[in-house]
Amino acid sequence: MSTLCVPAQVPSVAEDCEQLHKAFSGWGTNEELIISILGHRNAAQRKLIRQFYAETYGEDLLKALDKELSNDFERLVLLWTLDPSERDAYIANEATKRWTSSNQVLVEIACARSPKELLLVRDAYHARFKKSLEEDVAYHTTGDFRKLLVPLVSSYRYCGDDVDLTLAKKEAKILHEKISEKAYCDDDLIRILATRSKAQISATLNQYKNQYGNYINKDLKADPKDEYLSLLRATVKCLDYPEKYFEKVIRLAINRRGTDEGGLTRAVVTRAEVDLKLVKDEYHRRTSVPLDQAIAKDTGGNYEDLLLALIGHGEA
Amino acid sequence: MSTLCVPAQVPSVAEDCEQLHKAFSGWGTNEELIISILGHRNAAQRKLIRQFYAETYGEDLLKALDKELSNDFERLVLLWTLDPSERDAYIANEATKRWTSSNQVLVEIACARSPKELLLVRDAYHARFKKSLEEDVAYHTTGDFRKLLVPLVSSYRYCGDDVDLTLAKKEAKILHEKISEKAYCDDDLIRILATRSKAQISATLNQYKNQYGNYINKDLKADPKDEYLSLLRATVKCLDYPEKYFEKVIRLAINRRGTDEGGLTRAVVTRAEVDLKLVKDEYHRRTSVPLDQAIAKDTGGNYEDLLLALIGHGEA
Repeated sequence: MSTLCVPAQVPSVAEDCEQLHKAFSGWGTNEELIISILGHRNAAQRKLIRQFYAETYGEDLLKALDKELSNDFERLVLLWTLDPSERDAYIANEATKRWTSSNQVLVEIACARSPKELLLVRDAYHARFKKSLEEDVAYHTTGDFRKLLVPLVSSYRYCGDDVDLTLAKKEAKILHEKISEKAYCDDDLIRILATRSKAQISATLNQYKNQYGNYINKDLKADPKDEYLSLLRATVKCLDYPEKYFEKVIRLAINRRGTDEGGLTRAVVTRAEVDLKLVKDEYHRRTSVPLDQAIAKDTGGNYEDLLLALIGHGEA
Repeated sequence: MSTLCVPAQVPSVAEDCEQLHKAFSGWGTNEELIISILGHRNAAQRKLIRQFYAETYGEDLLKALDKELSNDFERLVLLWTLDPSERDAYIANEATKRWTSSNQVLVEIACARSPKELLLVRDAYHARFKKSLEEDVAYHTTGDFRKLLVPLVSSYRYCGDDVDLTLAKKEAKILHEKISEKAYCDDDLIRILATRSKAQISATLNQYKNQYGNYINKDLKADPKDEYLSLLRATVKCLDYPEKYFEKVIRLAINRRGTDEGGLTRAVVTRAEVDLKLVKDEYHRRTSVPLDQAIAKDTGGNYEDLLLALIGHGEA
């Protein structure tokens, strides 16, 4: 369900690198050329390009891009060019240094990636920051936030589809009890969300709905302004229905006074090769506006062009 | 610092399998033959033997051993034959189903293995039990025990030697404050032990000793019978000084009325290819009795013979 469009005939890595190098040379930068190449190569291809570029020109492609570009377009190109696990390690590290609103980014990385992908992020985090992801998350958070986030980023969930229905019923009951008591940071509630496999959690949430009438997130909205509760809802959504979660991230980023480029960029680069096709359909269904139209209206220039390329604008 | 003695000329895998198969045939079992083979092959060799045996005889070697052997010897052979990560997954799973005293086993697996090895254990746990290790640990524990054990088994610590001395001083102070207040399950105390790299923890414990006079475990002995405190001391020891930790496991297993074969077997099979040489030296230093002598006195039969083979008895 990727939106990325890779041409049927991809130029050789050497050609791509030569073109990119050309785009940086002389006075000014050829942004269109950069977009036409990087905006149409998948993660494996970008990785090869970055390796070959470093070997050939003795400079990290990211450094070269960093020198040539600026602002939102720069961030979009850099995040996109990074290998997915390095990218996640990078934005997770940023998130540990910021205010609580960025805890949502940590939830995305912990819950909307596959368990194996999360492990790769933790590896990339070691390599780049000489520390562990959970170490920084634990250090930079306190109280309930820490209690929820540390097990989420440390999880290595079972990836199979096996589901224990008896357990699902039992744990749906626990979740309902705790939520009814407003014990939102109860040990068992966090244990269930942080350790069970996604398939098992999905079964538990279905049982919750069957037994108690609501999708759990509705019951987690007692105080819509409570940041911890909002993080808990993000956790559930990223685990259970990531395309709906990211549709909302994009919708909120666009539907405000001044676009939230941070959220828009993050959602597009991290989902383009995953499920952005579903996110796009969901966005259209929810707002009655096609996503490319909304992006074209809200953004501009090279930033707009690369976003549109990544969401597969104009492709079948 | 392995004690395992692999002969300079190892027979082919096919020969080993043929001999093992022969040891099982006919009336009675040739235990000496089993010991002479499996007791002198490293993990990679045993893995090949197990694969080749299954391909050749259509039966899992472990199944065959299980049918032929019994009691302590059987458990020792089975645990030894297993691949290290499968073995850890197996004993961790047992531990989640038992009483709190077996929480110590979980601490060993979480803290006395390298971070990468712990990941392999978690992989093996998925494969064998269709669940995650942390999921079972969280489910089978409560309160303070859960609060400590879940982050320990979920950790993927940074493995490098980089140490931040300022941080070590700061965190030594936190540890000392919390221990002085008897806040043994304080969030920060657990955070430090569960997320920092082993090198960083070691630096922090050195600072602790420099600033406050005692090795931390001395201060964690306020109530020697408290099970949580004892688990905390095991955590510190497994992270900081595993050979001392396992020396004590073996010493306590031997120096009691009736040997604790569970502890002895576990310590020998899990450390033989790691640091059992150091453990042995430490044991001799601490008790003035060589470990092989103590084992020979306390155990008997094939169980004794394989233990002695694994601790490198009679080798240079």
